[in-house]
Amino acid sequence: ELLELGKGVPVLPRSSLGGFSSYNGGGMNGTSTMMDFLEEPLPGVGTYEDFNTIDWVREKSRDRDRHREITSRSKESTWALIHSVSDAFSGWLLMLLIGLLAGSLAGLIDISAHWMTDLKEGVCLAGFWFNHEHCCWKSNTTFTDRDKCPEWKSWSQLILGHGEGAFAYILNYFMYVVWALLFSLLAVLLVKGFAPYACGSGIPEIKTILSGFIIRGYLGKWTLIIKTITLVLAVSSGLSLGKEGPLVHVACCCGNILCHLFTKYRKNEAKRREVLSAAAAAGVSVAFGAPIGGVLFSLEEVSYYFPLKTLWRSFFAALVAAFTLRSINPFGNSRLVLFYVEFHMPWHLLELVPFILLGIFGGLWGAFFIRSNIAWCRRRKTTKLGKYPVLEVFVVTAITAILAFPNEYTRMSTSELISELFNDCGILDSSKLCEYVNDFNSTKGDDLPDRAAGPGVYTAMWQLALALIMKVFITIFTFGMKVPSGLFIPSMLAYYHHDWAIFSGWCSQGADCITPGLYAMVGAAACLGGVTRMTVSLVVIMFELTGGLEYIVPLMAAAMTSKWVADAIGREGIYDAHIRLNGYPFLEAKEEFSHKTLAMDVMRPRRNDPPLTVITQDSMTVEDVETIINETTYSGYPVVVSRESQRLVGFVLRRDLIISVENARKKQDGIVSTSIIYFTDHSPPLPPSSPSMLKLRSILDLSPFTVTDQTPMEIVVDIFRKLGLRQCLVTHNGKLLGIITKKDVLKHIAQLANQDPDSILFN
Amino acid sequence: ELLELGKGVPVLPRSSLGGFSSYNGGGMNGTSTMMDFLEEPLPGVGTYEDFNTIDWVREKSRDRDRHREITSRSKESTWALIHSVSDAFSGWLLMLLIGLLAGSLAGLIDISAHWMTDLKEGVCLAGFWFNHEHCCWKSNTTFTDRDKCPEWKSWSQLILGHGEGAFAYILNYFMYVVWALLFSLLAVLLVKGFAPYACGSGIPEIKTILSGFIIRGYLGKWTLIIKTITLVLAVSSGLSLGKEGPLVHVACCCGNILCHLFTKYRKNEAKRREVLSAAAAAGVSVAFGAPIGGVLFSLEEVSYYFPLKTLWRSFFAALVAAFTLRSINPFGNSRLVLFYVEFHMPWHLLELVPFILLGIFGGLWGAFFIRSNIAWCRRRKTTKLGKYPVLEVFVVTAITAILAFPNEYTRMSTSELISELFNDCGILDSSKLCEYVNDFNSTKGDDLPDRAAGPGVYTAMWQLALALIMKVFITIFTFGMKVPSGLFIPSMLAYYHHDWAIFSGWCSQGADCITPGLYAMVGAAACLGGVTRMTVSLVVIMFELTGGLEYIVPLMAAAMTSKWVADAIGREGIYDAHIRLNGYPFLEAKEEFSHKTLAMDVMRPRRNDPPLTVITQDSMTVEDVETIINETTYSGYPVVVSRESQRLVGFVLRRDLIISVENARKKQDGIVSTSIIYFTDHSPPLPPSSPSMLKLRSILDLSPFTVTDQTPMEIVVDIFRKLGLRQCLVTHNGKLLGIITKKDVLKHIAQLANQDPDSILFN
Repeated sequence: ELLELGKGVPVLPRSSLGGFSSYNGGGMNGTSTMMDFLEEPLPGVGTYEDFNTIDWVREKSRDRDRHREITSRSKESTWALIHSVSDAFSGWLLMLLIGLLAGSLAGLIDISAHWMTDLKEGVCLAGFWFNHEHCCWKSNTTFTDRDKCPEWKSWSQLILGHGEGAFAYILNYFMYVVWALLFSLLAVLLVKGFAPYACGSGIPEIKTILSGFIIRGYLGKWTLIIKTITLVLAVSSGLSLGKEGPLVHVACCCGNILCHLFTKYRKNEAKRREVLSAAAAAGVSVAFGAPIGGVLFSLEEVSYYFPLKTLWRSFFAALVAAFTLRSINPFGNSRLVLFYVEFHMPWHLLELVPFILLGIFGGLWGAFFIRSNIAWCRRRKTTKLGKYPVLEVFVVTAITAILAFPNEYTRMSTSELISELFNDCGILDSSKLCEYVNDFNSTKGDDLPDRAAGPGVYTAMWQLALALIMKVFITIFTFGMKVPSGLFIPSMLAYYHHDWAIFSGWCSQGADCITPGLYAMVGAAACLGGVTRMTVSLVVIMFELTGGLEYIVPLMAAAMTSKWVADAIGREGIYDAHIRLNGYPFLEAKEEFSHKTLAMDVMRPRRNDPPLTVITQDSMTVEDVETIINETTYSGYPVVVSRESQRLVGFVLRRDLIISVENARKKQDGIVSTSIIYFTDHSPPLPPSSPSMLKLRSILDLSPFTVTDQTPMEIVVDIFRKLGLRQCLVTHNGKLLGIITKKDVLKHIAQLANQDPDSILFN
Repeated sequence: ELLELGKGVPVLPRSSLGGFSSYNGGGMNGTSTMMDFLEEPLPGVGTYEDFNTIDWVREKSRDRDRHREITSRSKESTWALIHSVSDAFSGWLLMLLIGLLAGSLAGLIDISAHWMTDLKEGVCLAGFWFNHEHCCWKSNTTFTDRDKCPEWKSWSQLILGHGEGAFAYILNYFMYVVWALLFSLLAVLLVKGFAPYACGSGIPEIKTILSGFIIRGYLGKWTLIIKTITLVLAVSSGLSLGKEGPLVHVACCCGNILCHLFTKYRKNEAKRREVLSAAAAAGVSVAFGAPIGGVLFSLEEVSYYFPLKTLWRSFFAALVAAFTLRSINPFGNSRLVLFYVEFHMPWHLLELVPFILLGIFGGLWGAFFIRSNIAWCRRRKTTKLGKYPVLEVFVVTAITAILAFPNEYTRMSTSELISELFNDCGILDSSKLCEYVNDFNSTKGDDLPDRAAGPGVYTAMWQLALALIMKVFITIFTFGMKVPSGLFIPSMLAYYHHDWAIFSGWCSQGADCITPGLYAMVGAAACLGGVTRMTVSLVVIMFELTGGLEYIVPLMAAAMTSKWVADAIGREGIYDAHIRLNGYPFLEAKEEFSHKTLAMDVMRPRRNDPPLTVITQDSMTVEDVETIINETTYSGYPVVVSRESQRLVGFVLRRDLIISVENARKKQDGIVSTSIIYFTDHSPPLPPSSPSMLKLRSILDLSPFTVTDQTPMEIVVDIFRKLGLRQCLVTHNGKLLGIITKKDVLKHIAQLANQDPDSILFN
């Protein structure tokens, strides 16, 4: 029931940290008792078990104790002063390292994925390690024909010696599918064999971890290595997934691993989460080349505890990562992103109407996508389907590859496609989308959009429409498979084509032309907004991509409409929906708790349950306590003055109690089953014949959080959220009545939302 | 002592809101008791008196009650549904209005200030309402000589008929000083006569107000009108002040006034503060033309309670304001700001050294400025000086004007100067700073910096150095005077010149030239960072000004160094220092509380004081209670089960008690001095002969916040900050022991920082 013992419990109460006696003095005289603070009092103490929630208040207290200790020591010697200064700067050093590592890995991933995507179509004779573009740079062909150069051989050219005819086409087709299958199977097998946590986008789990949950190994070195490799494989295989979400996961892995270099962060779960928030910002920063957007994404979407100090450090990490990526220059154009665009056409106020329509469409698509994807994932979870992840990946890859090859726009990699769509046509552009009738005599060269559309534009149009439909459906099945998969790019892409089809015809006739790239951008933002429900960070990311304040208004109109429409259909974004699907104990900070229930409606024990199991402060024997420990599974017990008065003294955790009693039985003389355990400062008056007593005040948390039974749940939820509590005791007129844990709160919220309260799985 | 009755108290306990019975049901059945919710139960209820702190928990509870009421009603009729929808969108409408109003006012201020600044030097014959630049646009002179056109007459030209010679110079000088004095005296008299709150930058007060303090009239309509007018006058008078801080104040006034249009915001102090946070963002947005920077400024520097919903709305308000300003187009260049710059020269890694040096200098200057300015303001506050504000303004304006006129760089308006400094030189530039030796034959035209410096550059150099020294000293005395004064621009300016002097010589010789504008920018950022201790928002504002990600790294390096250096000398930024100077009850959220004191060290009563004044739940007579009310001045009393047990039941506010008892004495039959007052659900068993009893459960707050006496103060401070409490009760083993108010916490913090605890003035 209350505080069920999941797989383990945290160990120390708040007041027992720092040499077990930090708070028992008169306040300012604690230095002498603090000298042994940095030593661990007992093995395993201060750590949490897997799949448990941390106590933020405790972790932050520990860090403040540590900081106080170092500051007070720094006055004693020069060495301690240096230690104090280096401790203060370790955060910045850590950010620098995270930025460098995340930026380098992102560069590596970009280069490898680019090369392997091209490998599906052919190989470079000048050196197999060149991708198509680099291969043709080496050759001295003309600018317009840069896609065709003698050094680059498609598979049919390599095998048959020529690239023409039906057989060559079929051979290329076959090779394309084979490579795709090879990549994706390798990816799924690597994930299955070495790092099961490396699958999926990772953002739902990172959100949960940042809110204070422990998932051991989720951000470990194996996950990092396997995720990096399989991300390249998955992207190259042509599956309908993006690398943006996984890049956040990769960056967080970097952050977590680098935390081990510094005691300050290694040993404190709260401090480590500050670092992870910054790492998430760095991840988005390299994914989109948008450092400010990355920080806002971390603030808006991912982080739970985000003090201003972290804001500043996140910004630093995001910048370092972005500049590392730029120095690697994976796209060969000095840009941070593949699809950097710059247009300067003004937009007209009337165009807000189509932008808002795009927003509505994006919202509808977002809501539809979330529903279908969650339904599919639930089916995968509950039916036999989930037992054959390799087969599933095989089938989806095969279908994707077979459908993708005939259509030029699905054959190319997703980021190439987006880059092509976002850009305006130049005169020399070889893309089919830009195949307007070039009539240099009648019109000026810089007046491109006025030319009539060539046949290529119409071909492109229906190809894009087909691509849109295909991507929409494939993505639903792809997101959530057992390979690393991101969502950003597919959803950015998916929507775009629609508007192209509507407006491009108009554009090619009229004089007052529309910028198709802008529509692509706005559509992408609307779509992404509908799926993720991001707002400010989305607009800022897009702003950083385009670099023009002018386009913020269209982006904002679309993102806002999209969020409203999607919210009207279903409240949750894709990440929150996946968190709920997996039953993680995540207390949503955005949603207001709007019901009128009271603390007494939520607390355990319920009305007809047996009373709360408590320990008295100075009248229970060792045997009594051992009986309670054996008969209940609660992870902690309130300590009261006496059973009759039920006046609360403090809170003691199960694991502390077990360790202390066992330790005393073994090592302390005279402790027998009938020995009295007391939590008071002085031993209770007992007849001299009684056995020696056991003092356990040191493990007692003397400042447990309490609320009255009449406190509205909205305030209780607020306290849990803002202070990061794990449990809270309930009193009535000064008497202890019950307890509320974070899990109780989550179950209560689920119940009020007509969901299954047992969907919350972990402590 | 505890909860001293300052100038008034809040009125209703949390649980008595919403028809006095919202929380007494079993949870979900409260609709019938809520019907009278929107009516005010008693006059004056739910409002706060001037110079008091609001209770955030209570205000947020009230808003949630309101929201619940509207939502539950919306199912009943179509009209109620429309009301519900319009209520949901009123926030967005309000943001739109704030953006429009703030943008328009900013445009008006810019245009007027520009015109009046030029009026000091001369007048346009083509129409006196044209400023110098517009006047000469009308005329068809050549581009290089656009400053001199026949329509624009300096005062000497107008009066003497010519502008040459010593007498003309003296006449111009005289007119310049006279106009300056006229403007500034008008400003100070307007402020003194109509709106004393319109003086100063306003940001310290807005920070305090946003943290939950009440200053009536500070954001009222008179303040708005007078501040707008006097800001124009003060800027035009040539005083060393900027319009950025005051623009934030103006925007917040707009926000506050527009709040009155919507019940939701008019009646709820917490909701209104959300709007004010957004308005502050809009203010910075129009001041710098940086909407994203404005939002981050509001988040980082000004706001206290900033939920994500507000982030999104602030962004909207900031954008609307920026675009309104752009449509007004006060600078005639389609830019949002006067000093928009765009340079594309790359910077070298080695240049980081001077950037960091700039940061150090900026930090030193910031710390020096804060110290001197605070010392001067304290002197003004404590000595006779403060009694002659008009004289002070007269003297400072006279000195500023007399010193400013001879130097070309101090004579022009501050924003013109900055714009000139930030920009790179073009070939056709007529500025003296760009007077390089033009040798079109030997060098290429686009290779400007390689040319040798002409004599004008050296003249400019020492003029700038003089201007720097003068501005530095004058600004110290100007900031804090009884006229609207902003700090941003002077401090942005002040630092710049220094580096110019160092590097410009180097630049004019060498081949690998440096962008002087970039150094100006970085210097300005460093300086502003040192004074205000802004970080992310500062860098983002500068980024939005330059529009190039490339320059973020130099800006960041300088801002970071500057903050570190300044923090090492003095912890507080200028705004926090002014908050402390004025004794506002502001609980700093950035600073960690790092002492080891416990709740029992801070609570009242202290060790040797008489015990806490309490009210028992069912044994005190009306007379007893009236005696307590008359003999103490506390603004609230805890209610306990009995004096002996001291078990806490709830908390009752003084004003409620007075109103209820008086009301009962007048209107309820049988209530006499010996009537028992009870706070329980059922009346206590008493002999039938006793007089009728008075039930006051409805005014009892049944969920007061409690902590144990052993709770570390760091946790107590955290609770006060995060939940926005006004007071908190202290218990020991379930017995009530004492009380801690926000003022107690602030006094304790001041004491630990070796400051005078009585410097905290208000409740």
